Amino acid sequence: MDKRAFTVPPVRDLQLHEKIMDRLNNLTKPVGSLGRLEEIALQYCLCKKRVDANLLRMKIFTFAGDHGITEEKVTPYPSEVTYQMVLNMAQGGAAISVMSKRAGIECTVVDMGVKGVFQERPGLLVRKIAPGTKNFLKGPAMSKEECMRALNVGFDLAKESSCDLLGIGEMGIGNTSSASALYSLLLDVDSEESVGMGTASVGDLLEQKKQVVREAVSFHKREWTGSPLEALQRLGGFEIAGMAGMIFGGACHGIPVVVDGFVASAAALVAIRMEPEVRSYLFFAHASAEKYHETFLRKEGITPFLSLNMRLGEGTGAVLGMQIIAQAMECYNHMATFQSAGVSDKRNS
Amino acid sequence: MDKRAFTVPPVRDLQLHEKIMDRLNNLTKPVGSLGRLEEIALQYCLCKKRVDANLLRMKIFTFAGDHGITEEKVTPYPSEVTYQMVLNMAQGGAAISVMSKRAGIECTVVDMGVKGVFQERPGLLVRKIAPGTKNFLKGPAMSKEECMRALNVGFDLAKESSCDLLGIGEMGIGNTSSASALYSLLLDVDSEESVGMGTASVGDLLEQKKQVVREAVSFHKREWTGSPLEALQRLGGFEIAGMAGMIFGGACHGIPVVVDGFVASAAALVAIRMEPEVRSYLFFAHASAEKYHETFLRKEGITPFLSLNMRLGEGTGAVLGMQIIAQAMECYNHMATFQSAGVSDKRNS
Repeated sequence: MDKRAFTVPPVRDLQLHEKIMDRLNNLTKPVGSLGRLEEIALQYCLCKKRVDANLLRMKIFTFAGDHGITEEKVTPYPSEVTYQMVLNMAQGGAAISVMSKRAGIECTVVDMGVKGVFQERPGLLVRKIAPGTKNFLKGPAMSKEECMRALNVGFDLAKESSCDLLGIGEMGIGNTSSASALYSLLLDVDSEESVGMGTASVGDLLEQKKQVVREAVSFHKREWTGSPLEALQRLGGFEIAGMAGMIFGGACHGIPVVVDGFVASAAALVAIRMEPEVRSYLFFAHASAEKYHETFLRKEGITPFLSLNMRLGEGTGAVLGMQIIAQAMECYNHMATFQSAGVSDKRNS
Repeated sequence: MDKRAFTVPPVRDLQLHEKIMDRLNNLTKPVGSLGRLEEIALQYCLCKKRVDANLLRMKIFTFAGDHGITEEKVTPYPSEVTYQMVLNMAQGGAAISVMSKRAGIECTVVDMGVKGVFQERPGLLVRKIAPGTKNFLKGPAMSKEECMRALNVGFDLAKESSCDLLGIGEMGIGNTSSASALYSLLLDVDSEESVGMGTASVGDLLEQKKQVVREAVSFHKREWTGSPLEALQRLGGFEIAGMAGMIFGGACHGIPVVVDGFVASAAALVAIRMEPEVRSYLFFAHASAEKYHETFLRKEGITPFLSLNMRLGEGTGAVLGMQIIAQAMECYNHMATFQSAGVSDKRNS
């Protein structure tokens, strides 16, 4: 991504917009009665630049990485859980594994920076940048070069994905701290607001997490130039950078990307701040139970499809979102028209 | 249903509840992190009275009927559209047809009282009570006997459905007027509140619809004994009675029922008022764009899964809800446990 020129093709196209709406309005249903499913079909087709866009192949990538910030005891889970859960995903036992299988979505977990060594196998790619980020309370989480490499991994996976719709999710003990720090720095909010319980940080642990994020953000703010890329390098995780890269890769290649929850949305925030045009390629699947997520979405004017109080990550919300998009496109592509079905339109038309 | 004794088995079972929660808490995810998906799995298993309940076969029934109230010009669509849309459903061209197919849900449209004659065919059952209800502005929509017959159709279809999960939806020009009248009578709210645009009643047509519903409810109120069954008979449609009957049939046979939108919820209201225990067997898929639906759900303390501004009916929201339930049960039944996957639980446990 770094040295290559990349351009996100603009999605706006009034003529195409009109053609898509004509097609929607001619399906055997009252105009607009499929609500957001119609908005979804419109956005999807605009991204594809086709009035007859298909949605056949869906892929989800779960980016995994470890976090140096766990040294600060911000979470009750040990880092080893990242490694164990990646194996669990590759073996088909995680929530994302069973849900994506059920939905007919190919799921791949990507080792972006997990402590511990994996052998590649079907469903598990090794693209390790380093065995975990550095502790961002004490310095940048990663070097500039590592950050660019991580972005490129995501970018290239999107480019080579041969699919119509991508989903992004993540796994990484400590990564809600990283995401909260990114929200705090990029949106200038205190960690009191941006930090939530994550996996299971409650009571003193939650206070500790807030304090660590507050100190770290305040520390980095002093030197930060204001660049979103630099924010990512200072506070992000390799999996967050991988997701941001996939968003760029998707947008550059006309593949819309379904964003999972709190951590994936932090990657989306970085990407949108780097290049606002990518926003048109994103679908936000759900509002997580992680408290700041809903605030963030509201601030950005985003209404997610679902609000099911989920806070697992992995891409589990994205799968549900992709099923909804698939249904929207199923209606768009396969419903009868008033003419073909011989259904009367309104009395006076 | 009428002459037969029917009992809805109570769902509450503290021991089973605990077993289900144990199983949920032992899956490889932080406790509670699947949010409502976990609540769904709990409710589903309680309905099935099994800790190892499966969800394999899902069926959706779209009940169709015509309405005498259309004489009062409450909708811009002619009654013939009901007939045409039933054919469209049977031919696979309606939104419900393509969505249920995509979701792997068997869909059947049931002629409960459409004007016009159908031949039965795969996907289309003829259980016609009469060719449309009577105009409820001038008298009861149906006789007691017709109402019981319609309830029994739904009850028997549920009983004979051989499936694990049922969904209910409807089609019937004029039926939002009927549903609004039921809400108004049973919940004592003015039609200003309970009446919305339905398929496409706006401007003067919407005012006319409100006035008709107000007058009709006020007329029936004078003689109404307070029985929910009688409310159904006075103001309902054959498809609404069919859906209420399916709710009873499902509940009596341990088959949870997914309720679609505004009109299906009116059937649910009747059923719940007749026998509050059925409520435990119901999943409410989505909040419709039909304005009173959300108010009703909130009043009843129901949080639907989705809010996608849909207002088509047919069961289209129910399909999306059933996909979410299927995913909840997929996680419940197929995720690895901490032991089986060798994943560490929290640091101190």
